[in-house]
This record gives sequence, C-alpha cells and structure tokens, in this order.
Amino acid sequence: MGGCREVTIGPTALLALMTSRHTGLGGESGPHFAILLCFLAGIVELLMAVLRLGALVDLISLPVTVGFTSATALIIGASQLKALLGIRGGSGSGFAETIKAVVMRFGEARVPDSILGFVSIAILLALRKLKDVKTPQDASKGRKALGITFWVIATARNALLVLITSSIAFYFDQNGQRPFILTGTVKSGIPGFQLPPFSTQISGANNTLVDLNFKDMVSELGVNIALVPVIAVLGNVAISKAFGGSGINPTKELVALSLSNVFGSFFSSIPVTGSFSRSAVNHASGVKTPIGGIYTGTLVLLALGLLTPYFQYIPKAALSAVIISAVIFMIEYEVIRPLWRCNKRELIPGAVTFVLSLVVGVELGLLAGVLADLAFVVYRTARPVLTVDVTSTSTEVQYIVIRPRHSLLYFPAVEWVRNVISKAIKKHGNIPIVLDCRIVHEFDYTAATGLGALRKELDAKKVPLVVLGASVEVRKMLKETLKSTLLEANSEEELEVVLQELCNEGKRAELREVVSPLLSPTTDHQKVPISIDEE
Amino acid sequence: MGGCREVTIGPTALLALMTSRHTGLGGESGPHFAILLCFLAGIVELLMAVLRLGALVDLISLPVTVGFTSATALIIGASQLKALLGIRGGSGSGFAETIKAVVMRFGEARVPDSILGFVSIAILLALRKLKDVKTPQDASKGRKALGITFWVIATARNALLVLITSSIAFYFDQNGQRPFILTGTVKSGIPGFQLPPFSTQISGANNTLVDLNFKDMVSELGVNIALVPVIAVLGNVAISKAFGGSGINPTKELVALSLSNVFGSFFSSIPVTGSFSRSAVNHASGVKTPIGGIYTGTLVLLALGLLTPYFQYIPKAALSAVIISAVIFMIEYEVIRPLWRCNKRELIPGAVTFVLSLVVGVELGLLAGVLADLAFVVYRTARPVLTVDVTSTSTEVQYIVIRPRHSLLYFPAVEWVRNVISKAIKKHGNIPIVLDCRIVHEFDYTAATGLGALRKELDAKKVPLVVLGASVEVRKMLKETLKSTLLEANSEEELEVVLQELCNEGKRAELREVVSPLLSPTTDHQKVPISIDEE
Repeated sequence: MGGCREVTIGPTALLALMTSRHTGLGGESGPHFAILLCFLAGIVELLMAVLRLGALVDLISLPVTVGFTSATALIIGASQLKALLGIRGGSGSGFAETIKAVVMRFGEARVPDSILGFVSIAILLALRKLKDVKTPQDASKGRKALGITFWVIATARNALLVLITSSIAFYFDQNGQRPFILTGTVKSGIPGFQLPPFSTQISGANNTLVDLNFKDMVSELGVNIALVPVIAVLGNVAISKAFGGSGINPTKELVALSLSNVFGSFFSSIPVTGSFSRSAVNHASGVKTPIGGIYTGTLVLLALGLLTPYFQYIPKAALSAVIISAVIFMIEYEVIRPLWRCNKRELIPGAVTFVLSLVVGVELGLLAGVLADLAFVVYRTARPVLTVDVTSTSTEVQYIVIRPRHSLLYFPAVEWVRNVISKAIKKHGNIPIVLDCRIVHEFDYTAATGLGALRKELDAKKVPLVVLGASVEVRKMLKETLKSTLLEANSEEELEVVLQELCNEGKRAELREVVSPLLSPTTDHQKVPISIDEE
Repeated sequence: MGGCREVTIGPTALLALMTSRHTGLGGESGPHFAILLCFLAGIVELLMAVLRLGALVDLISLPVTVGFTSATALIIGASQLKALLGIRGGSGSGFAETIKAVVMRFGEARVPDSILGFVSIAILLALRKLKDVKTPQDASKGRKALGITFWVIATARNALLVLITSSIAFYFDQNGQRPFILTGTVKSGIPGFQLPPFSTQISGANNTLVDLNFKDMVSELGVNIALVPVIAVLGNVAISKAFGGSGINPTKELVALSLSNVFGSFFSSIPVTGSFSRSAVNHASGVKTPIGGIYTGTLVLLALGLLTPYFQYIPKAALSAVIISAVIFMIEYEVIRPLWRCNKRELIPGAVTFVLSLVVGVELGLLAGVLADLAFVVYRTARPVLTVDVTSTSTEVQYIVIRPRHSLLYFPAVEWVRNVISKAIKKHGNIPIVLDCRIVHEFDYTAATGLGALRKELDAKKVPLVVLGASVEVRKMLKETLKSTLLEANSEEELEVVLQELCNEGKRAELREVVSPLLSPTTDHQKVPISIDEE
C-alpha cells in the first residue's frame, strides 16, 4: 500500500528499543504493552493520515535525524553487551544504566560466550568488506561468478553466522555440552488471531500483581503513542528518499503503516515500520513492485512454521554480535565536519538530540532536538537581519535606509525593528527614515500596529518615515490597521521625489518659523508667500 | 529601577486573578501560596533577566494579547457578580463555574446590595464620561477651572465612590443597621518582615489538615511560577509602549520587577507588576522621573497605617462595581474588524487565547495562543511561497524558473520545494530548472543536502539545474555539503550564457549519440570532432 517498492515493513531495532521501555514491568504486561502500543500506533497513524499530519516529519532536520539514529545505535549496541559477554539477566533501560550494569558485573562474564561474540563480530565486519570487492567489467566468467558469490555471502552474512554458530551449539548439545548461553525455546507457528489486550497486570511490591486498566496502560505508554508513528513514517520516508525516489507522499505511507500495525496487533505484533537493511536487500535483489512484500511475507511465515524449533540453539552472543556489527554503522559522524565548517549553529540541535537521547531517552531527545531547531526558526523571525545605511539622493538629501533581508515581518520582530530604527536615529541624527520593504511580502497585524506606533514616535521627533516598495497586501494591511496613510514610494525614482519634497517642506517649515512672525504675528496657520516656497 | 517613569508597580487585577487560582485550598494555605508565588516569581524574573529571556514577550502577538486581556476582563467581571448582587460565599475558580453559581443562587440575591451595586456602576460610567468633556483653548477662567474639576472627579471617581458608599454604610452602622454586606475588619499597619512560607497546610477530607512541603507547594503553583513573570514583564513593556517610549529594555524591567517581588514577598505581598490605570494617573499628573514611585509608595504606607480601620465599612457591592466598571473597558473588540478584512488567519491565535482562557484558564489560553502563532511561523517556513514560471532566453532556450519568495530556505521546506520542482517537470517537460536564490540569504544543511539529492534526481532525467544569484554564504554551504559544484549564475546575463551552453551541449550529446557510432564504433568516450561541436 506504500509508495516505495523497496520498503519492507516489519520490526526494526529502533521501534523495538522504543517498545522495550514498557516491557520491563513484570507479570504478563511485557507483551501486552508491546501489542497495545502496536495497535494504538496504527490508530494514531490512521488519524495522522486523515489529518494530513504526515508532513510533521518535515520538522525533523538532518542533524536531528543523525543525532537520533547515532544515539539509538549506541543504546542498542550497549544493550547487547551483556549477552555478548555471557552475563545473564535482562538489560537495563537507559544507556548509562546499561553500561554501569556491564561494568559492575564484568566478573560474571563467561569466556566461551565472549570468545564467540568477538569472533563473530570480527567475521561479520570482514564479510561486510567483501561487498566492496569490485569485479571489473571485462572480467572472465569465473571471476564474475566469484564476484556474485562474494556479494551473496556479504549480504547473507548475518543468516550465515547464525546458521553456523547454531550448528556448533547444536553439535555441543548433542554431546551433552552447553558452552554458550542459548536463546531457548521460541513459540512455534503464527500467533493466534485475538484482540489486542486492553488491560494487564504488572508485578507490584511483595510479589503481588497490580491490575492496570486501559487508561493506566495508555498513561504508561504516554508520548510514545504519538512518537512511534512519527518515527515510523520518518523511517519509511527516509528509506524511499535513500533509494532515489522523491515525491513520496507521507499520507500514503501512514495508511500503509497504519494497516500493518493494526492488523499486526491482532497477531501479537510489536510496532512495525520499514526496515532500512531489509529494504536494501530488496533493492539489491532487484525488486520491481511493492508485490515483493508478498514474497518476503511468505518466507517469514515459512520460517515461523518450520524453523522455530531450531531457534533455541542460537547462541545469544552470536545474535548480539549480529546486532552490534549492524548498528555501529548507524553512528554517523561525517556530518559534523561540513556543519562545523559552515554553520556551527546547526550542530546544536543534533548535539541536543544525541546527548538527551543517551541521557534521558530517545523520545525526549528527538523532541528536544526538534524544538531546538524550531526555536531557531522562531529566533530568525524574531531577529531578522536588517541592514542600516546612510545614503543621499542625487540632490544631496541625506536619509537612513533600513533594509530587512527577510521576507516575513511578523510580530516577534516588531520591537527589534523599532529599536534598530531608534538607534539609527540616535547615531545619524534626525534625517528621514526609509524602510525598504521590497523583499518583504508578508506582514501581520502586530507588525502593522508597531509601524503605526513607530510613525507616531518619529512624528514627535519630526523625522519623516517613508515605506519603499511595499506590496499590495502589505499596503492593504497597513491601511486597514493604521486608518491613515504612510508616505510611500514604489521605486527608487519615486523615493528621490518624495525625499526632495520632504526636504523642501522641512525648509519651508523652518523658514515659516523664522519668517512668519515677522510677516503677520497672528496668522500662525496662514500659508507662507510663494516666493519663500520656491526657495 | 525600571526604564519608564510612568510605571507604578503594585498589585493588578490580572496577577490577582492568576494568584487566586491557588488560594482556595483551605487552612492557612491561601496567603501562603500567594506570598510564595510572589517570592518565586521574583526569583524567576531575576533568572530571566540573567538569561536575557525578557525578549520572550516579543512572542506574544497583539491578537493574543487582546484575546488574553479580554478573557481576563470577563473572568474578573464575572467573579464580582456575587458580591455585586449580595450573594454570600467565595467566587468559583473558572468562568463557567462562576456564572453557573450566580445563576443557581440567584434567589439569594439581596435587594440593597444589588441596588447599591448597579447604581454605583451607573455613576462610575457616567463620571468616566466627564473626562471627555473638552475645554476649548480660549475658555474663560471659570470654564477652565470647571474642566480641571471634571478631570479630577473623573480620575478619582473610584476613590470618591468608595468614600461616599462607606460613609453611607458607616451612617447606617451608627444607627445599628446593616443593609449592605461590608468588607469587614482589615488588618492594620504594614505586615511584619518575615521569610516567605516554604510549607503550609491545606484542608483535607473530614476537616483534617494536610501538610504540604515546599515541593508540593511548587507543584501546586506549577506553570504559574514561569507565567506570572512573563505576564508581569509584558504588562510593564505594554504600559511604557502605550506612553510613547520605545526602546524599553525588558531585562531592566525584569530586574525592577524581581526586586519588587522578592522584597514584597518578605512583607507578605502577592505578585506585583506595573498597573495600567495607576500608571495612567501618574502620567496625567505629569510625573517626570521614576522617583515618582516614592510618593506613591509613601501614600500607600500612610493609607495602610491610618485608613485601615475605615476599610471595614466599605460595602462589597461598591467594590465590585468599581472593579466591574474598570474591567469592561479591557474587553477589546475593535481589532476584529481590521483582522477580518485583511488577514483572517490572525484571528485564530486571538480566538484560541480568548476561548481557552475562559474555558480552561488564562495561563493555558495564553500558552495555546502563543503556540498557535508560532505554529504559523513554522508553517510559513515549511511551506514557503514559490512562484513557478516557464520562460525562455533571448535565444529561445526554454527553462523553468522556481522563485522562492522567502529569504530563508530551511529544513522543513526541503521536501516541499523538491515536490514543487518534480511537479513542474512533469507539467512542462524535461527543460532546464533555474532556482532563483537572489532573495534567499539563509540556507541550512538539510536544505543543502536536499538540493544535492534533487540534482541527482534531475541528473537521472538529464535535466540541468542552475542556481541563480546565490549569496556567498549559501554557496559555501552548498560546496561544503555537496562536495561538488552546482551550475551557478550570478546574474540574468550569466544565466543566458549558461543556458545557451547547456542547450548546445545537449545538442552535441544528441548528435554524438547519432553520429559517433558511425565515425568510430569502439571509442565511445572519444571527443566528437570540432565541426559537430560548432553546429
């Protein structure tokens, strides 16, 4: 149902991590929370599709995405350290806790598991390099076949490793030995069709069970109910962008994800989304249409039906090795250099996301990063770049030009612009102010009112204010708000005329003050004779 | 300590309303919460001054301010209805509750109080009109004295009304009658100097008292700890703007407010800020420097020391009349018309603030209004106005010009711009795309990466992409990010040359495809002879 043929929807490391936050409460609640989250995420995805909220992913900038995925990779990698070293017990929830637990219990590490784990990582990283072996275009047939074999081995390296290490474990097991910690029995077959759980029990104090109703469960899942869908659709959009297609419609992706999650939740699924690595395999295998998903699905079902008895022999350390050697490539540090060199400011949202994801959690980290980015957007609107120049017309009338380099003049900038103008007058004296609005194409009521107040203030100082090149919309707004007209000029030429007029008027006024008492002391408002006008 | 001579800092209706949210919990807690809020608001104001957060008031647009003050006026007015009608009992907390309580208990209304209340309102409104009586410039001395008397009566109308109604109540009291509900004994003198309360007791179930520690009190005060300072500094800035001075420094105002609140809290004060009506009196009295505050303060202290015994005779209905006839002029509906006529969109934040303030509370109403405004700022950045034109050079080379009318091209807009360009190509065919960046002066990493992806996509379709008039910063960003150069043109003239070149190259490439196999089928990469080049 999605718009990109490569994407295969299923469980991903990231969503599993986000789900795992809620699965450590004891009792039967672990799977219950996971399934309910899947169901609710599906419902929220549908709502987001209806409300066209898919565009929310546009608010996640690249530095934030990078900070987020890098932190996720570190957290997932850390969560696998225990299993890699053969230390028993579940992993902690946070990054710091996990690392601390591993360090504290380092003495419990088991030698066979550690060896298996590190050797597996080394093999996986080496096999990954096989992909980079280029076959020349004019190679012999044998050389070409070798190239293809390399590619297959590199691509299937995870499956191969799991197969080989399981075989080793199986062999030991047949001889009555258990050198490695194994995965243990996995329930076989497709989980039955049933309603997602709307209530559960968690373990309370003194081994009692505490009942949770739907509301309690929702409040435990909290912000993740909204965040899992955002992360899910972000994933899908990112994958399809990576494979070169633009014009992916987030709404369509949301509908596809919604159906997958809602239906999945009836079969006890955790939240699912497009997986980057699986999609890459799909792409490399030459998938042509989204029907490819049917093949993938069939294979998964077959594996569930036929292979599960063998899953119990998979050594945990080998699985951890697979996960660790996958996630280390998700840590992206390459973006730091270009950002450092030309826009250090953009490092902040990325760093905020990365650090907070590690310290407080990925959800809050992502939110904080997005807010940091948006704060800058607001800041830029509140503090637009203004250039202030003193210049003069061809007839030597000096004036100050205030030129916003921004196309929006909105409420947060009003005070700032007024202050800049006040400062300019203090510095350059009471000469006319020209506000160059030629690139300003949006204006709001607060800004218009602010301009009115500015004019009053300038009137008191006898400083004329001319608006240059305001668009029709801006003029209409000013007229409606101020209920009187401002001095306007449409072009540089008109500006010259307007300024010359102002200058003449100013001279007239000065002369009037000097001359008129002499001419007729009582008629203060009378027109000054023409001869003086033409001075 | 503030920057505006007119402002007098003291209790205001708005802050009293915000404080009153926390004073209905029974026991001794009412004043305790009010004093603690005053203290904490002072501390937060100091922090905001240090962090230069005073500029946060810039984020409150005029429509939001209007919605907020109008809702506040309605809530305060409603809260006085009970006292006006002589219904006993405290007022409810929300607007709807208050109105409901008044309607339900309308039968308990007392005739003397109601008459006193409504007559007082009528008198106050009539006296207010006295201010509008203009004295002509050439009036006689007697006429001028009358004008001044009118002005004094209009300005002092509240004090006069309270004085007269109290006298009436005092007269009745001396005769052993109590027709009106009176204010009752007010503690005389200046409250003693003592630390603000950091713990309190509220009334719990069955008339027990529940202890609250500092943390509980802070969590009860909640968001108001941050919001009271914002509203307070907004008030101060608004007042000084109203009296014509721009260039008010919010940081300086915050320091002044911080000191007032922190010191005030040691004398059992509620949160204080600049009051509009008192400042107007100050202004009308011709205050010249902030030293005016010392006179005001001395008078208040004298009143506290000498007048409090007489406060007990003030009829509650008269006080309510004073408050109601003041707040009804805070309801501003005049902004609706200009907004409706030229920018209906701006009505939304105002309406959101107004409605939510009435329904949920002024704090949440204000926050929601600000967020609605900022959401639009973000929306404008995410969906910049782009014009798409098909035009051609003087040599008839057709091309598409995409012209952002925005000066910022940031991450939220990237997908949108790509989609617009994709659509333009679909509509107009594979002709060169010119991205006119002459008014774009800021660009971010995500946008630069997006432009790189766009170029790859266009390369695949053999559509050239030319960036016109990019600034130095934008170019640097593009170069760092893409690690290869884009086609660029600095001016319309250069653009003509670049496009002509592209057109020639295109023709050459076509010719090459046709001609080169004929010339030399094996040398695919060889240069095509010059004669064809010059076609």
